[in-house]
Amino acid sequence: MVASGARAVARCDELGVAPYSDAPDMLFRAYLTPAFAATQRAIAGWMQQAGMETRIDEAANLIGRYAGTGDGPPLIIGSHIDSVRDGGNYDGPLGVMLGIECVAALHAAGKRAPFPIEVYAFGDEEGSRFPASMLTSRAVAGTLDPADLEVGDRTGQSLDEALAPFELSTLTYAKAAHGPALAYLEAHIEQGPVLESEGLAVGVVTGIASQLRYELTVTGRAGHAGTTTMSLRSDALTAAAEMVLAAERIARDAASDVVATVGRLIAGPGAPNVIPGRVGFTLDVRSLDPTRRNAAAEAILAEFEAVAARRGTALATEQVNDFAASPCDPELIGLLSAAFGDQPQFSLPSGAGHDAMTMAALCPTAMLFIRCKGGVSHNPAEHVDPADVEIALQVMLGFIYALGDTQ
Amino acid sequence: MVASGARAVARCDELGVAPYSDAPDMLFRAYLTPAFAATQRAIAGWMQQAGMETRIDEAANLIGRYAGTGDGPPLIIGSHIDSVRDGGNYDGPLGVMLGIECVAALHAAGKRAPFPIEVYAFGDEEGSRFPASMLTSRAVAGTLDPADLEVGDRTGQSLDEALAPFELSTLTYAKAAHGPALAYLEAHIEQGPVLESEGLAVGVVTGIASQLRYELTVTGRAGHAGTTTMSLRSDALTAAAEMVLAAERIARDAASDVVATVGRLIAGPGAPNVIPGRVGFTLDVRSLDPTRRNAAAEAILAEFEAVAARRGTALATEQVNDFAASPCDPELIGLLSAAFGDQPQFSLPSGAGHDAMTMAALCPTAMLFIRCKGGVSHNPAEHVDPADVEIALQVMLGFIYALGDTQ
Repeated sequence: MVASGARAVARCDELGVAPYSDAPDMLFRAYLTPAFAATQRAIAGWMQQAGMETRIDEAANLIGRYAGTGDGPPLIIGSHIDSVRDGGNYDGPLGVMLGIECVAALHAAGKRAPFPIEVYAFGDEEGSRFPASMLTSRAVAGTLDPADLEVGDRTGQSLDEALAPFELSTLTYAKAAHGPALAYLEAHIEQGPVLESEGLAVGVVTGIASQLRYELTVTGRAGHAGTTTMSLRSDALTAAAEMVLAAERIARDAASDVVATVGRLIAGPGAPNVIPGRVGFTLDVRSLDPTRRNAAAEAILAEFEAVAARRGTALATEQVNDFAASPCDPELIGLLSAAFGDQPQFSLPSGAGHDAMTMAALCPTAMLFIRCKGGVSHNPAEHVDPADVEIALQVMLGFIYALGDTQ
Repeated sequence: MVASGARAVARCDELGVAPYSDAPDMLFRAYLTPAFAATQRAIAGWMQQAGMETRIDEAANLIGRYAGTGDGPPLIIGSHIDSVRDGGNYDGPLGVMLGIECVAALHAAGKRAPFPIEVYAFGDEEGSRFPASMLTSRAVAGTLDPADLEVGDRTGQSLDEALAPFELSTLTYAKAAHGPALAYLEAHIEQGPVLESEGLAVGVVTGIASQLRYELTVTGRAGHAGTTTMSLRSDALTAAAEMVLAAERIARDAASDVVATVGRLIAGPGAPNVIPGRVGFTLDVRSLDPTRRNAAAEAILAEFEAVAARRGTALATEQVNDFAASPCDPELIGLLSAAFGDQPQFSLPSGAGHDAMTMAALCPTAMLFIRCKGGVSHNPAEHVDPADVEIALQVMLGFIYALGDTQ
């Protein structure tokens, strides 16, 4: 079978169910789980069929390498294979499958680029297991702090314990850092509604929005739901509810591209007849403009403090991520745009974070967005048209040839 | 050692940690768990030392029986041995320990009442495992519907599966129903601040507040936290947050004994970068006056519907409990009050539900409340003074003698 966008889509669908999901009734593939390992094995097979040599690096990334006519710094084509809980099939894996199809096309034609091509299947982008995201691309870009690896999942398992079945350790994790690279290219579904509303299959990404993420804990006083009068309560959940609404209100009032989300909230002890004494939740704030983002986050956190004080609850706030806006490389944007050929030119920013934003510390980056139905993502209804993916594949191949011409 | 309140307290403390708790770092003893079985074994030993014959009934209640000089309907002294998650040592077990101490006192003195005494250690009062409470005392009172037994815990295990290790089944569960009983007596910590504020060790309960409990599900639309603009969201968590605050506001505005609590709330899918598409939560509403309670519940549910409609989210509401107010028996109240001797007379209502409210369907009931520090319960800080428990024991023994005199 020749290289094709349809095969890339079909392979993503194949990976959408057990044994490639850890949950029986939905797609949930978290970093370093049994489903994650099974997915790596399947993809490694496809990489080898496409003519690549495969290996697992010290951060448990899967890498397929296709030698070039020259042995200089490689072009890295990458994306991630982990998913959110109850996610869709394409957020992440589609970019890996397209990298494989690019190499398969060269291999089938008996061609090699002037540079090696490395297809990276990153392990952790979503942060759906450990309270940190893009751990693995940060390792490759060489920007990890040792302290970043001291994380545990919701069951209390440490990253080190999770690495053990892969015969890996946090002690050697940073050795996944890559040497010089020529460029980084990532294809990804848009996860938003812009391309669909423009009637376009693909678009060139200008850059990635800045984002802040916090973990917060509200502590009140647990008590019996039947005997503690309303006036004597210190309910951590009603306090947290006011905070959730404050974040929404402030982001709305900004009337800009600012978005604020409380995605995870856990109320404890969590029994129907006990007033919650402790609530933990996350806050995610984004904007293309870091100044707007910071102003919104500051206003939200100030309002949280005011709510906590008014209600006599304690509030602990920890910032867990601060990702700067990451503009894509102007020269690579030019090459990618030129590869559009007959396709209408279109460029757009990304509201979502991607591995490209961390890889920008290593080398120039470029991203290609692919239209997804209704802009829906992080949801089992995620859908992409194979014809759009075919167009993406042709654009990526055009980019590779054009990059070769610059060498 | 002679029968004593101090021993009853010490035994509750002994049961507050592993192997009598299923959690390593807190007290959580749910119905039919390994910790539950270990607790039954310990208590059965204490019952036997006090001169009782023990058995487990078809609902997995532990029963100690002390024969009387007559073989008529027994006096049942009962309470529960399950706990809420991260609960205190005395809510439940103290009443069982006091029943054992009453019998131990009679046994040590070589005495028997004119009636048998049965000490019941009920298995499920809190409803902290299955979405139903007082399953076991309802079985004993003979008021269970077969449909009430078709429940599963949060891991998906059915009641039937949970009963299997006890060699029991839902098919025979209803056989736990008791024949005629003379009376039911329950001693319990107050779980509220009234006795402490009055400076009293114990008080006679006049009756138990009516309570309603609901399970609700808000369904919005999950989506990517970075790419879905604020105006395009259908966030189930912000909708639920408005509902949580509405319940609090309406209960406060009632300016009465009405209390409303959202004790459990689970937001799904539960990742920091995903807008919550689905939130499940519980609502508990209580008042001594069922009319006030119903008016508050109706106003809260109407406001929930309005919030859901305004936000374009779906709301599913299921009523899971409707416990009527349960007045204690006037004659038994008289006997219990008379047993106070030199202690100041005091009576008070109960805002919390107790097994006594379901046992009222079987026989006349009486309850004795014991002061607890700060009114705190359903919390590891729960504390009771052994001297107060000693007074409770003397009042209960006085009640047993007085009840004997009526035979």
